[in-house]
Amino acid sequence: MRTSNLLLPIIKENPKEAEIVSHRLMLRAGMVRQLGSGIYNWLPLGLKVLRNIEQIVREEMDKIANEILMPTMQPVELWQESGRYEAYGKEMLRITDRHERPMLFGPTAEEVVTDIFRNACKSYKDLPKTLYNIQWKFRDETRPRFGVMRGREFLMKDSYSFDIDEEAAKVTYWKHHATYLKIFERLGMKAVPVRANTGPIGGDLSHEFHIVAQTGESALYYTDDFSYAMADEMHDPATAPAGFKEARGIEVGHIFNFGTKYSAAMNAKVQGADGKEIFPHMGSYGIGVSRIVGAIIEASHDDAGIIWPESVAPYKVGLINIKQGDEACDKLCEEIYAKLPSCLYNDGNTGAGQKFATMDLIGLPWQIAVGPRGIEAGTVELKNRNTGEKQEISLEAALSKVA
Amino acid sequence: MRTSNLLLPIIKENPKEAEIVSHRLMLRAGMVRQLGSGIYNWLPLGLKVLRNIEQIVREEMDKIANEILMPTMQPVELWQESGRYEAYGKEMLRITDRHERPMLFGPTAEEVVTDIFRNACKSYKDLPKTLYNIQWKFRDETRPRFGVMRGREFLMKDSYSFDIDEEAAKVTYWKHHATYLKIFERLGMKAVPVRANTGPIGGDLSHEFHIVAQTGESALYYTDDFSYAMADEMHDPATAPAGFKEARGIEVGHIFNFGTKYSAAMNAKVQGADGKEIFPHMGSYGIGVSRIVGAIIEASHDDAGIIWPESVAPYKVGLINIKQGDEACDKLCEEIYAKLPSCLYNDGNTGAGQKFATMDLIGLPWQIAVGPRGIEAGTVELKNRNTGEKQEISLEAALSKVA
Repeated sequence: MRTSNLLLPIIKENPKEAEIVSHRLMLRAGMVRQLGSGIYNWLPLGLKVLRNIEQIVREEMDKIANEILMPTMQPVELWQESGRYEAYGKEMLRITDRHERPMLFGPTAEEVVTDIFRNACKSYKDLPKTLYNIQWKFRDETRPRFGVMRGREFLMKDSYSFDIDEEAAKVTYWKHHATYLKIFERLGMKAVPVRANTGPIGGDLSHEFHIVAQTGESALYYTDDFSYAMADEMHDPATAPAGFKEARGIEVGHIFNFGTKYSAAMNAKVQGADGKEIFPHMGSYGIGVSRIVGAIIEASHDDAGIIWPESVAPYKVGLINIKQGDEACDKLCEEIYAKLPSCLYNDGNTGAGQKFATMDLIGLPWQIAVGPRGIEAGTVELKNRNTGEKQEISLEAALSKVA
Repeated sequence: MRTSNLLLPIIKENPKEAEIVSHRLMLRAGMVRQLGSGIYNWLPLGLKVLRNIEQIVREEMDKIANEILMPTMQPVELWQESGRYEAYGKEMLRITDRHERPMLFGPTAEEVVTDIFRNACKSYKDLPKTLYNIQWKFRDETRPRFGVMRGREFLMKDSYSFDIDEEAAKVTYWKHHATYLKIFERLGMKAVPVRANTGPIGGDLSHEFHIVAQTGESALYYTDDFSYAMADEMHDPATAPAGFKEARGIEVGHIFNFGTKYSAAMNAKVQGADGKEIFPHMGSYGIGVSRIVGAIIEASHDDAGIIWPESVAPYKVGLINIKQGDEACDKLCEEIYAKLPSCLYNDGNTGAGQKFATMDLIGLPWQIAVGPRGIEAGTVELKNRNTGEKQEISLEAALSKVA
């Protein structure tokens, strides 16, 4: 992609409305624009990162679950069955359609998925079954803030499992636990799973997953193998064993095992091998996909801008033409651009300084700069955004480094 | 994928609530389930088709536009600026949040995208710019019906172009026209573009794109090169030239060129080369992505079920184990399954007749059946779902045919 063809509205100054670094950098790098309170437009650069994260989540989830898609609009009747319609409070966006029928914008989907399950699955042979979807949710927060980190409309991966008994449900639960660690590893992030309270979802077994970042909202206490890890709400310094490490974290995932709470309330049962009816044991498992975009930036940035892990970067290489209009520079840049499958070519007429600053700001893993002096010497400048290391090397060497 | 791991709730009888063949077949093949009036859950098989269509649309749109993502929830103020808030009527789903602020579920996005543009682009150098997104829309139809063909919550690709003047805008318009023909060709569909009225979107140049299907809702009149093609609302038999062909069609796309209607109303202007302010000329271009799933089925099915074009099929090959539990059959099926990257293996314990019926119903392009007699003869049965042709051939020959 050429910057001349891309909607990339860079902002040089820090926007006043942004309180935290990820929000500031997402606005400055032209990744998102606010449309309303807690509601964001995703511009090309931000959307690419969001889609890269979504794809990693999908690839790992496909190994343990079926992908489905549930609508944003949900009927209230299912929530009345589960007993959560009144209980959910004002965070639920309640809507009335043209025929005065009440609906709601789904904040989560335990009820809808249990309804899908009870209509489709009638026998123990249909178990185990895990269904997931990656869909926009809406939670009408009193005070949305921090950009996409605490938005009202946000993208969530939510999965739901149905098992024959408690033991099988726990196996599925721990499969999700392992899958989540794999997902965050592929995202290039250090994630800590911590024991958590179950809250309004219910149940007795629950973990949160936090991305470690100095600016994190939660205090985490953990050992190197995470076997006692917990968030501050669960941590009691008086009884904690020695050797606990402390860090700050941003919650990006939460998993719950809650038994038959929804299957019983909504009469979702299957026939067992002995002919008796069984309420499946369930769990639900969330990942805040749009929130992760902000969390990665909180964990990975410097004064100059964002530092994307390679797996989620919108482009792998940023190509800088130091002297746009110079025949040799233009020609070499076109050659390099044609060779790189994931390259953002800054072909604008701005000065070289501004081009370097923009590339640092948007945080692509590699930068290749082409200028007249380098061409004379037979070199280009290759910069690693993460380490800051710069090298004057041959084009071939640069291309093989970024390959 | 194995059917034993897949949520695939096949229905043998025609569901009473479905009036048209695509709705019947999507329910019977376990592709969708209704959640509420005009609102559907997409189950694994249906979602795969939807995503395949979406990906083809995306790949072609990426050649002429930048992908962005606009939220489902929109503020009313932008619609008041354009003058459409009152005019849109009851099809717009109007919502009030917890702070009593009015919002709406976007039925289209001319206003939002014009707002993005006016904040990001200030100079003629920022033109031309075309932005698109693939996002769920909501239109509160009085009487939703025909399954995903006339739903309330539906997936639409909508793009919006900004050009310096009328001439440049027409170039962009015809680029979309060509891109749409390419998209429908890749979807394996015969599409006819017809001149259309512009309706409430406004403007003076507009085409609808129809997929040709005997069950189509619109009458189409066209010549072989489509240069006079029109829908019945625009067709006057008295003045039409001779040699017009007639067909039935399903509208799946609509493109509009409407000049400065929104840029002027919303004061979205750029500075021209001469320093004067210019209101960009705009167009908008829609494709009904979820509707296409139904339209393809209307155009491509027989009495036994769906016939997917290869480009959108949920899997390329259906593998049928005629004698599940037979050691040789199980072993050969596992070998074949391991070799095929896009295969649905029906490994259930149902009879062979039911397995063949299910495969015909869900419409995968190829079927490979493995049974004891074939194994003895060194053959498998290969069936082409479209032509119905069956061959008893060696496994190697079968694999090379489906490759």
